[in-house]
Amino acid sequence: MAVNLTAPTADALLPVAGIKLATASAGIKKPGRQDVVLMELAEGSETAAVYTRNAFCAAPVILARQNQKQAASRYLLINSGNANAGTGESGMQAAKQCCQVVADLTGVDASAVLPFSTGVIGQPLPVEKITAVLPEAKDKLSENNWLQAAQAIMTTDTVAKARSMQLELGGKTVTITGMSKGSGMIRPDMATMLAYITTDAAVSHAVLTTMLHKAMNQSFNRITVDGDTSTNDACVLVATGKADNKLIDSITSEEGERLLSVLTDICRYLAQAVVRDGEGATKFISINVKQGQSQEECRMAAYAIAHSPLVKTALFASDPNWGRILAAVGRSGIDNLDVSTVSIHIGDVCIVDKGQPASDYTEQKGQSVMDEAEIDITVSLGRGQAEDSVWTCDFSYDYVKINAEYRT
Amino acid sequence: MAVNLTAPTADALLPVAGIKLATASAGIKKPGRQDVVLMELAEGSETAAVYTRNAFCAAPVILARQNQKQAASRYLLINSGNANAGTGESGMQAAKQCCQVVADLTGVDASAVLPFSTGVIGQPLPVEKITAVLPEAKDKLSENNWLQAAQAIMTTDTVAKARSMQLELGGKTVTITGMSKGSGMIRPDMATMLAYITTDAAVSHAVLTTMLHKAMNQSFNRITVDGDTSTNDACVLVATGKADNKLIDSITSEEGERLLSVLTDICRYLAQAVVRDGEGATKFISINVKQGQSQEECRMAAYAIAHSPLVKTALFASDPNWGRILAAVGRSGIDNLDVSTVSIHIGDVCIVDKGQPASDYTEQKGQSVMDEAEIDITVSLGRGQAEDSVWTCDFSYDYVKINAEYRT
Repeated sequence: MAVNLTAPTADALLPVAGIKLATASAGIKKPGRQDVVLMELAEGSETAAVYTRNAFCAAPVILARQNQKQAASRYLLINSGNANAGTGESGMQAAKQCCQVVADLTGVDASAVLPFSTGVIGQPLPVEKITAVLPEAKDKLSENNWLQAAQAIMTTDTVAKARSMQLELGGKTVTITGMSKGSGMIRPDMATMLAYITTDAAVSHAVLTTMLHKAMNQSFNRITVDGDTSTNDACVLVATGKADNKLIDSITSEEGERLLSVLTDICRYLAQAVVRDGEGATKFISINVKQGQSQEECRMAAYAIAHSPLVKTALFASDPNWGRILAAVGRSGIDNLDVSTVSIHIGDVCIVDKGQPASDYTEQKGQSVMDEAEIDITVSLGRGQAEDSVWTCDFSYDYVKINAEYRT
Repeated sequence: MAVNLTAPTADALLPVAGIKLATASAGIKKPGRQDVVLMELAEGSETAAVYTRNAFCAAPVILARQNQKQAASRYLLINSGNANAGTGESGMQAAKQCCQVVADLTGVDASAVLPFSTGVIGQPLPVEKITAVLPEAKDKLSENNWLQAAQAIMTTDTVAKARSMQLELGGKTVTITGMSKGSGMIRPDMATMLAYITTDAAVSHAVLTTMLHKAMNQSFNRITVDGDTSTNDACVLVATGKADNKLIDSITSEEGERLLSVLTDICRYLAQAVVRDGEGATKFISINVKQGQSQEECRMAAYAIAHSPLVKTALFASDPNWGRILAAVGRSGIDNLDVSTVSIHIGDVCIVDKGQPASDYTEQKGQSVMDEAEIDITVSLGRGQAEDSVWTCDFSYDYVKINAEYRT
């Protein structure tokens, strides 16, 4: 059901020097499924991470944040099938135990291990099932397990999400490979958005952190399926430095800008893949709001459209019901919005021209663009130079079905 | 399908001295349907009104606002089947023409007529069809047509919404009768929330305006079906003064407080009726957030729960998926929320106790409260004395069906 999204082939996912991965089957939710990923980061790697801002964040999120402050990260431990969220103090102990076992197996300090969980909320993490397979995972660590890892972190995802790109930096080939999972922005009972992007480029910690935030703002922070955010969301960026390029210690250097550009492309692909695989999605919607006084007001209008259940159900029905888009812009909370300067396009069809119904609009024109699987909505506010974009999907019977019936 | 809501009988709707109503069939959308309401307000009536804050408001909203400033209102003209929204300058002319015909028939100035429209957006208002039936409507004006009027303003509503109450003020019997329509907070293609509440009490204009805002804040401003607001929403409160009570010119007088209390009850009934008849609703949900530092933060948390598609689909499925409620509170944007002071109940079942999963919670207990048609969700923030409540409904297949397939 995913919209124009297919899983990558194993060959398309390039190894990143300094990154090894392994998967294992702990039987957390379904017997036999690969549901544990261990990722090893070479010594000297730099790590930046962004975590959910949800006040009820899961135990692994709290622990990962703490550990990252205390030590250079050497291992990421990810499990699907159980979110270890809403589990209180015992959930924290469970996360710590898992990290300790990785530490004991590998000889690093437990604070060098970052834990991540995604799956059912409010159920005890089966620590022993997970720790039992960690020796096997350690033995299987390899640079070539990206596709298996991308599959192992899936929950309600229908398609594995991963991508590689390369660029030249000062005569050295630099590789970026990343993977993501998530099919609602939140599924506190079963999912979450997780993303892991790695590169062998040498990048200073400060620049890596800035790059992550900049790339996130053009990607994961611009997608929405249902407006919710999860207890477990996390995005991690690792730079191993093994490409032997000259250290990038300035975001505005020519190398820094080129690396950020490719990194942003990967993040945008991985973020859009989450939307394309959105629960019940049948359409991929790009919403661009321009000519605003500030990026913030453009974003407000874009999210008002993207979160409107009325717009989303009309998109599902391929109904050129432009009144709903207009009404969403009107209620988006932009100060002193003068509708007489607002124009709205769906694809290249003008539906509102400076606040008035477009004189050459016909239902037939509207229908032709709404029938597409990928739909662009453009709003011109006519009051400034700022712009912003978000990506979302439609709202179908299957969204209700997936979310109403998941636990039954 | 409405949740515990039945239409009133004609006998239950008490005439209000000074208010006459009539309906007529203009065939705006469906031939033969009563789709026009004319309401006459006795000379000397006071009128207060609140209109949509949507920047793209419909022509009748713009005109009603203007007219109300210019003259004492004497007639309300309401049509269903066409919203006269997104119709530009010609829509404004259409609304003016309708008001002028009422004015010509009744001998008042056109500015004494307030127009209201609800229905399909973006289509020309059939002015001639409407004005053709106005003489008939004028001839039929009667104090006893409340039920017919409540039926005539319905769009996707499945149940007519109206209520009467009486109280004694200084030895005089005062009557309040009101009606509302709406089954989504917005249906820019077909609906809107409209409410008309009338009383024969004598109330000063300033007090009436204050009463309307206070009553709205405990009723229509606390309901949500899908988080949208419409281009056409309006709520009108009329006091004819025919009950011959001593003029209420203070909101804090004993009479003022008693009248406000009954008025608020009526508004709450009419507002909750909109939710009970929410598109596809199978459950009526009351969300109360207490122990907040401010009413505003309580409201933020309540709306975060009420607007979460994940919470709403779980409610539809009677799934005690408390993780979704917890996650909605966590992301609601309350500053420095300390989850260790937060407790959450569904009905009388504690699901989260001071930030931890309630130790005595069982899935069976959760299921028993979720199986009910009326569900109370209570969140105790544990950081103050403020509280606020909102009412909403669940999110069902039928919501998608109604909104995806409406225009086909």
